[in-house]
Amino acid sequence: MEYIKDPMKIEEKSFEIITEELGNKTFQEREGKIIKRVIHTTADFEYGDITKISETAIDSALKALKEGCKIYTDTKMAMSGINKKVLKELNSEIYCLVDDAEVTKEAKERGLTRSMVAMEKAVKDPETKIFVIGNAPTALFQLCSYIDEGHGKPSLVVGVPVGFVGAAESKEELTKRNVPYITTLGRKGGSTIAAAIINALMYMIKR
Amino acid sequence: MEYIKDPMKIEEKSFEIITEELGNKTFQEREGKIIKRVIHTTADFEYGDITKISETAIDSALKALKEGCKIYTDTKMAMSGINKKVLKELNSEIYCLVDDAEVTKEAKERGLTRSMVAMEKAVKDPETKIFVIGNAPTALFQLCSYIDEGHGKPSLVVGVPVGFVGAAESKEELTKRNVPYITTLGRKGGSTIAAAIINALMYMIKR
Repeated sequence: MEYIKDPMKIEEKSFEIITEELGNKTFQEREGKIIKRVIHTTADFEYGDITKISETAIDSALKALKEGCKIYTDTKMAMSGINKKVLKELNSEIYCLVDDAEVTKEAKERGLTRSMVAMEKAVKDPETKIFVIGNAPTALFQLCSYIDEGHGKPSLVVGVPVGFVGAAESKEELTKRNVPYITTLGRKGGSTIAAAIINALMYMIKR
Repeated sequence: MEYIKDPMKIEEKSFEIITEELGNKTFQEREGKIIKRVIHTTADFEYGDITKISETAIDSALKALKEGCKIYTDTKMAMSGINKKVLKELNSEIYCLVDDAEVTKEAKERGLTRSMVAMEKAVKDPETKIFVIGNAPTALFQLCSYIDEGHGKPSLVVGVPVGFVGAAESKEELTKRNVPYITTLGRKGGSTIAAAIINALMYMIKR
């Protein structure tokens, strides 16, 4: 079996194929880098149509990442997918509160999802931050409510929950908020997509 | 904002919607549980067409999981997505060698991907095992070669790398091997899909 073994060559070739198959569908440079990385992660060209990036999102996110910031995720899986080496070079930190013992206990007592309780704790942190929600619509709904109350002013919200119950609705709510956001409209999304978006942003600064 | 907050109700409702939208497309019971969980994870009904489960795969996997077995993954992300609580109840263990210092060093020296070197180490383990490859075609190609040499007789190979270079080809190779496998033909796949497949199998035994 003959196949390409060099990871960077595989990635380069992949992006060439994606650009070629996108054909007439072109994007602005930085938007294109994000969207193509999402397609690279999923092999699903529908993300070329459903990915929505708010006007201030990229500038705001890059500013935060350049200064060093805190990233909060709703799942360990999204956290796992983010390039830790580059994150560290950017003096940024990532947290996922969902497996926190206190969070688990409180979620049970209050009949809420762990993601919701975790989001509550993240919002209370006064430092500049990026929220990454790749799985739980409940966490994104919750974050929208907090934003309405003036809490947790984010440098970026990556809101890409996946699924059939609440995902599309939660993302629709996000797009109505006056915050820098990146989302995927409709049902599709997920932790791998969330991680790809953060990685694409980081790679604009450092790689 | 009104929305369902109970995680189990969200999941139940999601599976109802998936079954409804699959319409006339039906599966045998156990196959259906796997395929629907993959659709649940991706919101992508194409997985109903491209998911291929070899004849002995489910029996072989359930036997191994009931007896307690070792699961090797190619990425931390796939490992993160697998339900650790249920895994523990099944007396099974999961490993991902990709961030092992020795693996990293060896990959650099030999000009291979870390996934390939990690797979080599996993294959040398004589215990019953399940291989989960959600990301790297190179790891799946490598595993196929080892199988040809009679090494690493797996109880199951979940081979679902995603991407544009080698992914489809590596999965095609897997389907030619006489081993129990679950795969997604073509370019699509990924860590979340890999984790969903393992979770679906475990939930057939315990939940």
